[in-house]
Amino acid sequence: MIKVAVLGYGNIGSGVVQVLLKNKETIAKKAGDEIVPACVLDLRDFPGDVMEDKVVKDINLITQNPEISIVVETMGGTKPAYAFVKACLEAGKHVATSNKELVAAHGPELLEIAKAHHVSFLFEASVGGGIPIIRPLVSSITSDAVTEITGILNGTTNYMLTKMSEDGLDYDAVLEDAQERGYAERNPAADVEGHDARRKIAILSSLAFGKYVDYEDVYTEGITKITSADFAYAKILGSRIKLFGTSKKKEYGSISAMVCPVMITNEHPLFAVNDVMNAILVRGESMGDLMFYGAGAGKLPTASAVVADVVNAARNPKITEIEPYEPGKMTVSDHLKSTHSYFVRVKGSDANAVAESFKAKQIVDAGIADEFGLITAEWAENEFDALCENYPVVSVIRLAK
Amino acid sequence: MIKVAVLGYGNIGSGVVQVLLKNKETIAKKAGDEIVPACVLDLRDFPGDVMEDKVVKDINLITQNPEISIVVETMGGTKPAYAFVKACLEAGKHVATSNKELVAAHGPELLEIAKAHHVSFLFEASVGGGIPIIRPLVSSITSDAVTEITGILNGTTNYMLTKMSEDGLDYDAVLEDAQERGYAERNPAADVEGHDARRKIAILSSLAFGKYVDYEDVYTEGITKITSADFAYAKILGSRIKLFGTSKKKEYGSISAMVCPVMITNEHPLFAVNDVMNAILVRGESMGDLMFYGAGAGKLPTASAVVADVVNAARNPKITEIEPYEPGKMTVSDHLKSTHSYFVRVKGSDANAVAESFKAKQIVDAGIADEFGLITAEWAENEFDALCENYPVVSVIRLAK
Repeated sequence: MIKVAVLGYGNIGSGVVQVLLKNKETIAKKAGDEIVPACVLDLRDFPGDVMEDKVVKDINLITQNPEISIVVETMGGTKPAYAFVKACLEAGKHVATSNKELVAAHGPELLEIAKAHHVSFLFEASVGGGIPIIRPLVSSITSDAVTEITGILNGTTNYMLTKMSEDGLDYDAVLEDAQERGYAERNPAADVEGHDARRKIAILSSLAFGKYVDYEDVYTEGITKITSADFAYAKILGSRIKLFGTSKKKEYGSISAMVCPVMITNEHPLFAVNDVMNAILVRGESMGDLMFYGAGAGKLPTASAVVADVVNAARNPKITEIEPYEPGKMTVSDHLKSTHSYFVRVKGSDANAVAESFKAKQIVDAGIADEFGLITAEWAENEFDALCENYPVVSVIRLAK
Repeated sequence: MIKVAVLGYGNIGSGVVQVLLKNKETIAKKAGDEIVPACVLDLRDFPGDVMEDKVVKDINLITQNPEISIVVETMGGTKPAYAFVKACLEAGKHVATSNKELVAAHGPELLEIAKAHHVSFLFEASVGGGIPIIRPLVSSITSDAVTEITGILNGTTNYMLTKMSEDGLDYDAVLEDAQERGYAERNPAADVEGHDARRKIAILSSLAFGKYVDYEDVYTEGITKITSADFAYAKILGSRIKLFGTSKKKEYGSISAMVCPVMITNEHPLFAVNDVMNAILVRGESMGDLMFYGAGAGKLPTASAVVADVVNAARNPKITEIEPYEPGKMTVSDHLKSTHSYFVRVKGSDANAVAESFKAKQIVDAGIADEFGLITAEWAENEFDALCENYPVVSVIRLAK
C-alpha cells in the first residue's frame, strides 16, 4: 500500500482525493499497488468530509512520516508551497504538484533536489490542466529537435475571446460573464494580463529546450485592450483572436518567447480551440506538427493529471522521471527584434497612403467610421513601433502562422 | 555507448538511422548516453549508404551479439518479423517496432516475453505515426477510466475523403491521385477496406481497456462504397465523412468496437482533421476529452516515434515500460446490437412516408433525381437493417457524435 499526503485541500486537492478513491481499482492496476490518500495538510477543518479525521496542521507530521512516500502539492503560490515541497523532497518523498507559480519560479532547484534525493518532482498538472503535455515532452518528444512550442494555455481568456467573437460582446461584458460562471477570479489580472500563460509557456519552453526559461524574461501582453471592433475586422478576415504563449528556437542556443493576443486564420492548427479548452502545438524538425488538446482547467481534469503523476511515481519509485535542466538560464532574445506581420487599425480615411508606409498586403473596411484596418508586411517590432509613431494608430494585433 | 540494430532497412528503417545520426546530440542528452546504429539486417545491399558496411543477413549475428541492447523492427508483416522479434526479446534485448500487424496479432505474447526477460517491447510508431499516443495511454492516462477511444487512424483514406469533400471528385479519381502521390499502395485494400485502421484501433483499445482486443473481432467497413453523391448531402448538412476506428467501454467488462465511415458535424473534435493527418480522441470519466493530433505516417515522423521508444529503453533499461495485458481476450459486443443514428439515401420521391418509418429527424434534398436523404432516429443496427429491407436504399452512413 502506497500512502499519499495532500498539501492544500481546496478545489484541486479535494479532486485528487476524489479521483484516488473513485478510480481506486484502475489506479491500483496501473501502479502495481494500492494508493491511498493518507492525510491532508490544511489550516481549515473539514467536518463531514471523507478526510475529516485525516487533516494535519503541521508539515513535519508529513516529512517525518516514513510511511508517506508521495506528496501532492495543490496549495498554489510559492509561500509556503516552496518550503514545504523542498522539505518533502529532502525527506526522500516524491512530489507531484499542480502549482505553476512554484514550478515557474523554483523548478530548476526543485528538480536538482529531487535528483539528489533519488525521487521525482512532477508537475503534469501545472500546464494544460488535464492535457498530458509535460510527460510527452519529457518522454515522447525525445528524438527530435523541437523548433517551436505554441499554446492556448489559459482557459479563462480563451473563453472570453470566444464569447467576444461569437456574441459580439465587449470586453467588460464577457469578463463579467466569465466571473459569474466562476471561470475568472474577482481580481482577474493573472488571467487577463497574461501572467498565467507566461508562467506556463516558460515551463513548457524549459522542458522543450532543456534549459530554464525564466518567466520574467517572457515579454507579455494580456487581452485587456482587445475590443469588439477588433473582432469586427477579424470576422471579415475569416480570422480569430487568441491569446498565444509561444517560444521558438533561435540560433546560438537562445529562444524567442512571448505571450500576446494574435490573429490567426483557419489554416492555423489552433484555430478550432474554443471556449475554456486549451491546446499545445509542438513543432519538430522531423516529426512535424503535433497538437495536444483538452480541458485546460477544472477540478477533475487537473486532479486526474496530478494522480497520473502519483501513479508514475508509485510504479517507478527509483527513477527521477524529469531530469534537471542544463545549468544556467536560457537566453531569451529581445522581442523588439522579432518579426511579425500585424493587423493594425488607423484613424482617418486615407488608407492607401498609410498602407504604402506599412507595406500593407491588405486594406480592411469593417464599416467603422473614420478608421480602417491594414494587414502589414513583416516588420521587426522596433521598426514597426517607430512607424506607428507617425500615424493615429488605434490598435495593433500580431499575426501568427 | 548504446548499440542499436535495425531489422529491415526500408523507408522507416532508414529513417530511424537518419534520425539517430542527425539528432545524435539531442538524443544523447535525453538518453544519458550516446546511441549508435550498429548494424542493419536486410537481404539487400546498400552500396553508397551510410550503413553500407554494417549490413548483416543473419539474425543470429544480432541476437547473439551482447553489445547490442536495443533492436528496432521496421520490416512490416509478421513473417519473419514475429520470429525475429521474439528471438531478440528472449535474448534480453529491448525491441521498438513500427509494425502494427505484428503488434495487433502477437502483442500479448511479445509483452509477456519482454516482461519475463526484464526488457521492454515498445510500439509507439505502430499507431498514429509520429503522434505520441501509446506512451500517453500507458503512462499519462492512468488515473482515470477511459470510456471511449476514437481515431482517424489512416492517413491515406483521410486524404481521399478530404479530396472527395473539397474537390467533389469521385472515389476512383481520388484513389488514382493518392496512388500517384505515393499515399496509397498499388493494391490499396489494406487502407481503403479499413484493415489498417482495424489493427490500430485494436492496439489502442487493448491498451486503453487493459485486455487484448483481437482485431479480427472488430467489425470493419472501408470507404469503397462512398460516392460523390454522399458528399453532396454531407455538404448540405454541414458535415464531413471520415473513417473512424472507435471503441467504447460497455458494462460487464466488454467493449463495442468498429471501423466504418461516419458522418460528423463541426461539433465533433475530429471534424478539422483533414488530408493525411491523424488524430486520436480519448474520453475519460474525470479528465473529459483529450485529443492527440499529428502526422499519422511519413518516414521521419514515424522514425521519430521509433527513436523515442529507443531513447526510453536506453534511459530506463531495467524497466518493462508496457506491462502485459490482463490474461484472456476482451469481449467485443455484436455490432448488430449497437445503436446509431444514420444518414440514409433512398430511391423514390415519397420522402415523408419513408421518413416516418425511419423516425427521421430530417429530410435532405441534394437535388439528385429520384432520391432523397434522411437523418434517422437512433436504431439498433439489426433493427435498422431489417427496416432497410423494405425500401430501395441507395447508401447508409452512420452518424458519430
